Amino acid sequence: MAQDLRSQELKNPIDVAEYLFRRLHEVGVRSIHGLPGDYNLVALDYIPKVGLHWVGNCNELNAGYAADGYARVNGIAAMVTTFGVGELSAVNAIAGAYSEYVPIVHIVGYPSTVAQKDGMLLHHTLGNGDFNVFSKMSSQISCAVSMLNDVHEAAVLIDNAIRECFLKSRPVYISLPTDLVQKKIDGDRLNTPLDLSYPTNDPEKEDYVVDVILKYLHAARNPVILVDACAIRHRALDETHDFIKKSGIPVFVAPMGKGAVDESLPNYGGVYAGDGSNKGVRERIESSDLVLSIGAIKSDFNTAGFTYRISQLNTIDFHSYGTKVRYSEYPGVRMNGVLKKVTEKLGELNIEHGPKPNNEIPEQEVKSSEPTITQAWFWPRLGQWLQKNDIVITETGTANFGIWETRFPADVTAISQVLWGSIGYATGACQGAALAAKEKGIKRTILFTGDGSFQLTVQELSTMIRNKLNPIIFVICNNGYTIERFIHGWQDSYNDVQEWKYKDLPAAFGAGEGSVLTYRVSSKKEVDDLFTDEEFSSGDTQKLRFVELVIPWDDAPEALKSTAASAARTNAEAIQAAGK
Amino acid sequence: MAQDLRSQELKNPIDVAEYLFRRLHEVGVRSIHGLPGDYNLVALDYIPKVGLHWVGNCNELNAGYAADGYARVNGIAAMVTTFGVGELSAVNAIAGAYSEYVPIVHIVGYPSTVAQKDGMLLHHTLGNGDFNVFSKMSSQISCAVSMLNDVHEAAVLIDNAIRECFLKSRPVYISLPTDLVQKKIDGDRLNTPLDLSYPTNDPEKEDYVVDVILKYLHAARNPVILVDACAIRHRALDETHDFIKKSGIPVFVAPMGKGAVDESLPNYGGVYAGDGSNKGVRERIESSDLVLSIGAIKSDFNTAGFTYRISQLNTIDFHSYGTKVRYSEYPGVRMNGVLKKVTEKLGELNIEHGPKPNNEIPEQEVKSSEPTITQAWFWPRLGQWLQKNDIVITETGTANFGIWETRFPADVTAISQVLWGSIGYATGACQGAALAAKEKGIKRTILFTGDGSFQLTVQELSTMIRNKLNPIIFVICNNGYTIERFIHGWQDSYNDVQEWKYKDLPAAFGAGEGSVLTYRVSSKKEVDDLFTDEEFSSGDTQKLRFVELVIPWDDAPEALKSTAASAARTNAEAIQAAGK
Repeated sequence: MAQDLRSQELKNPIDVAEYLFRRLHEVGVRSIHGLPGDYNLVALDYIPKVGLHWVGNCNELNAGYAADGYARVNGIAAMVTTFGVGELSAVNAIAGAYSEYVPIVHIVGYPSTVAQKDGMLLHHTLGNGDFNVFSKMSSQISCAVSMLNDVHEAAVLIDNAIRECFLKSRPVYISLPTDLVQKKIDGDRLNTPLDLSYPTNDPEKEDYVVDVILKYLHAARNPVILVDACAIRHRALDETHDFIKKSGIPVFVAPMGKGAVDESLPNYGGVYAGDGSNKGVRERIESSDLVLSIGAIKSDFNTAGFTYRISQLNTIDFHSYGTKVRYSEYPGVRMNGVLKKVTEKLGELNIEHGPKPNNEIPEQEVKSSEPTITQAWFWPRLGQWLQKNDIVITETGTANFGIWETRFPADVTAISQVLWGSIGYATGACQGAALAAKEKGIKRTILFTGDGSFQLTVQELSTMIRNKLNPIIFVICNNGYTIERFIHGWQDSYNDVQEWKYKDLPAAFGAGEGSVLTYRVSSKKEVDDLFTDEEFSSGDTQKLRFVELVIPWDDAPEALKSTAASAARTNAEAIQAAGK
Repeated sequence: MAQDLRSQELKNPIDVAEYLFRRLHEVGVRSIHGLPGDYNLVALDYIPKVGLHWVGNCNELNAGYAADGYARVNGIAAMVTTFGVGELSAVNAIAGAYSEYVPIVHIVGYPSTVAQKDGMLLHHTLGNGDFNVFSKMSSQISCAVSMLNDVHEAAVLIDNAIRECFLKSRPVYISLPTDLVQKKIDGDRLNTPLDLSYPTNDPEKEDYVVDVILKYLHAARNPVILVDACAIRHRALDETHDFIKKSGIPVFVAPMGKGAVDESLPNYGGVYAGDGSNKGVRERIESSDLVLSIGAIKSDFNTAGFTYRISQLNTIDFHSYGTKVRYSEYPGVRMNGVLKKVTEKLGELNIEHGPKPNNEIPEQEVKSSEPTITQAWFWPRLGQWLQKNDIVITETGTANFGIWETRFPADVTAISQVLWGSIGYATGACQGAALAAKEKGIKRTILFTGDGSFQLTVQELSTMIRNKLNPIIFVICNNGYTIERFIHGWQDSYNDVQEWKYKDLPAAFGAGEGSVLTYRVSSKKEVDDLFTDEEFSSGDTQKLRFVELVIPWDDAPEALKSTAASAARTNAEAIQAAGK
């Protein structure tokens, strides 16, 4: 047949699935997340063949969260699900990755192209012969959709999808029908690696923007730098670091920018989130005559409820898609090149020094004889225990706000979902992050989740055990959805959760005897003892560590309280505005 | 303001959320599934107010599955999620309900209409100001989408959505923005109950179709009735039962029709699924000169891989959307009216009696001295233990095929997902079904799931405990995804799962001491003992019962083996057909 003749003409024929997984290996993927399903089984055979590791998650939503966590540590991730039932379970995780700029290649095992053409009434369909309905849904949350229906297009579509995924830092969707898996394509294409470099800015335009920036910068009396999520997600951290170091300008991070900056630098000043910031930080930033804002995402929870008080007249915005100086916009002038050149051409600056970050344990907490762990005490205390290179994952809830008060050592990676905010995310993400950490030789992955949140995705603990990962897991036991209580329903039963014996779970999930260390700490003293316990703190032990961290149900970090009040207000104000 | 004036004019003003929940109560909903989220919290306050019960699931996918199970027992279900993160997690469950005709009202708490209009950068958004993207996704898997953005339309849109949900027996989507929740609308509308009756057929057309059917029926020498899923889902069971009883025609069920027919009737013949049927059944149906097919869904797994051998020339199809006699189509002539009239006008029939259903334990299994539990032994044995009115839920996998060999007592409700086939479904569905059973005074809800499948949605066990439900749960411990092994990857590690200590889970999930009975059975003798244990079998105990049912990893019901082989062939044939 025609196809056979064509494959005989290929000098170095390779199966479509092998091509796909080799490309993923080339761009740095080492483990594939996901679940088996009959439409993807034959494809899964290629994973060990090309030297990749199959994770084998407990469900697809968790696999998606895990892929997200893996990508944030590793740079990019891939997952495999099956048509309909598998892929749809992952949609929330993929939407989160889209929202927060995380590159995940989502490969979906499809029924054969023949079955699709015939509109067969197969399992995992809506029973209406429509095989495009799920890809249509995913197209809303993917920056590229590659439907592999024709062997002649397969390599190009695979290459495009992976390149888009990396460059736009967002999920892509690749359909892989059963009858395409073993089709032969040209393996020699793999000799040319994918070009993953960003297009450079137009030099004349870039020089123009740089000159404008330098003019304002040299005239400024008390400039500050504010680093946010997109500096991380769009890979401008090297340029940002060089600029911070050479300029000496006081630097702050937005909550979503936590971990972007070396917090041990002398010019690091703390977290800025409008009214959610420490007083010194807020005053310093809001009185600055030039805010160099790198990669901002000004969402409600990232700004403590839209409480920034920075004038656009005093702001220069650096983005992946362009630069904005006061109100002058320069679309297409990407931040990376601009920051690099600004740093190179930097002259003498007028710098008023920033405040020192106030991440000490508050005095009243230190003095207090109350043994109970408080949020105000715990998060600064945590900063004293963290180590260089740690990966710290915080769940939407008290942890995600508490971490603002934790000063990081150098090179800490912070993972959270401040914009998308899907509870349950952090436990899944921890599995992926811990796996990437293991592959990269990073020693400690530390998760903080809440009891309510942990219940959504608890079975990923089993996947961690199965994959012999050794994260340090803190489950904040505070009797339910505390963040929701601060918004509405203070003592309503819908904000309660079933009380679990959390630390019995690793054993129930099949952890070998002695392979997991479990703890329950309910006083400051017990936390102190835990943090000084060498076996617990060691980056070298292979043991997973699981801590029940008991904090009162009605306690929350100050930043959460003000953000929650603002969220409740937004609803209430809207109700009034709409004329109730 | 105008709005205030208007609400003062209402004689009996009622809040939008209260109206919505009162309507749900009116159509038979007693419990609401779902999770809290800040965009739905204020709405949740109305649930206890109108006498409804809030379930409080562990995650939204599970809540969706549970709502599906609840609807299959109760007739209709409702769930509440929050915008973006919550609703998207439920998409797979909603798609399954769409595929299998299960009516679920899905209420999504939305940001306020003001925030939407302003395109605010809120949490749970994609960060692009588009608040319609998720409803667009859900419109693919909902038979109606009601966006409550204007108080003047709210009542009409709510009524339409609930009516469509019931009549089309498929999910609907209702958005409920925070600022609409407490808006006043006309409460007097509630004095007129929703009209949930199907439109009657055009009498002349119906009479014509009935005459044609009677002509063929009276001429037939050996007619059979074959009942399938849509007879259940489109509420034609009363008409079907009357027809079966009065006619005395041998009756069979398709796998998705299990539970539709009183299997203790003398004219019940067994399960027909082409090559997946017992020999006697297959021969009887395939040699019949008239198959009266009621509510068929001829999907791959429902026909053991498209192996029906029934000619359309010998078939009369009864559907919700029309009737088909041989090749003559009568669109719009709904089965309910037709079946009723055919039964009324029925004359003397030529009936050749059907085979007796062979649901005895196979002789070689009875004689075998091998103590190990086999699938061939277990499923017929189960039939001897089941009781009238039991609800039996079987997971996609060995259970879903094994149950073909179980003969039910009268009035058993069978729940499974033969078409959509999402693993993990059954455990979620069990929670909802057990709750509906409790509300309706049905005593036993019995779940059969696999170890692989159970892992996807394990935390719903906690929701059962929290809601004090007492189902009988069997986890088939056979080391992984056995159904996948029979399709591809016999011993490949991707079909393995982490080995859990399953029966330690109820305690870890907070079950009170003595409130759960746990068992592990690994021999036929132990099963026999269990089935004769009165406390275990009782419908009156309030205790949840949890059984590890140990069956060898490489054993499967015959019907699964042949269906899996056919699925593998469909892929392989397609590969050849496509010219590899």
